[in-house]
Amino acid sequence: MIRPAEPDDVPAIVDLIRKLAEYEKLLDEMEASTESLREHLFGERPWCSALVAEDEAEPRIVGYALFYPCYSSFKSCPALFLEDLYVTPAARGRGHGKALLQGVAAVARERGAARMDWNVLDWNQPAIDFYRALGAKLLGDWRVCRIDGKALDRLASGG
Amino acid sequence: MIRPAEPDDVPAIVDLIRKLAEYEKLLDEMEASTESLREHLFGERPWCSALVAEDEAEPRIVGYALFYPCYSSFKSCPALFLEDLYVTPAARGRGHGKALLQGVAAVARERGAARMDWNVLDWNQPAIDFYRALGAKLLGDWRVCRIDGKALDRLASGG
Repeated sequence: MIRPAEPDDVPAIVDLIRKLAEYEKLLDEMEASTESLREHLFGERPWCSALVAEDEAEPRIVGYALFYPCYSSFKSCPALFLEDLYVTPAARGRGHGKALLQGVAAVARERGAARMDWNVLDWNQPAIDFYRALGAKLLGDWRVCRIDGKALDRLASGG
Repeated sequence: MIRPAEPDDVPAIVDLIRKLAEYEKLLDEMEASTESLREHLFGERPWCSALVAEDEAEPRIVGYALFYPCYSSFKSCPALFLEDLYVTPAARGRGHGKALLQGVAAVARERGAARMDWNVLDWNQPAIDFYRALGAKLLGDWRVCRIDGKALDRLASGG
């Protein structure tokens, strides 16, 4: 039901990334393409890994998890960051999300990672409840900062 | 003033990691050691990179930034995650923090990363003000989730 993504899965994963962006009300940020994701997952220098969830229905691929290595300086330990976890609405409630999260946790352990981190939208209560039920903690006092686009250019050039 | 960390800097960086953990009231999480950090920064398979800030005073190394590659699936772009940024209290107000953040931004651009992300504690208003002044955004509606220790073991083994 859960397996590592293969190059032929990339178009299906890009469709699911778009669905996730729509669900998270972040469709304006969506720029993923089949070419770029194939390069970033399976190119000479991979930036991330993915698992997919298969169902008996069509389309077969109903969910995915995308992740990459990260690092805890305090713990001095390799870790794993889960960038995306998504299951289509029609396929929910059949254990795909849990199986994907278990699959990523197994990869984390295989790779010697001592923890898994990810972000969740504070209004996404079903996701928060799901994660907590599986043993995750919400680190309530941390906020996410970001710099990109022209602000990153300015900062990089000493502005 | 800012330069890439070298293996000889590792003991000084571990001291600064401990100071950061203390400042963030997370000293109970502090397990970094010289041996492990040297391996993770300069070993066969590096997990992270670091810049250090030097001052004329003693100790010379008064700040550090520790970071690693990450990835945006929505943007289909490599990115950089800033795990730590720290300057000792005695050396603050002399531009070290800004220079470190600029240095990491320059690495991000060199590597083709389109954005830099990091986390900040919601009670650390001086840090939030500093980041905003340099063009960063606070993504107010995201929360950080984590699973580690026995909960990660249980999840990985299908529990």
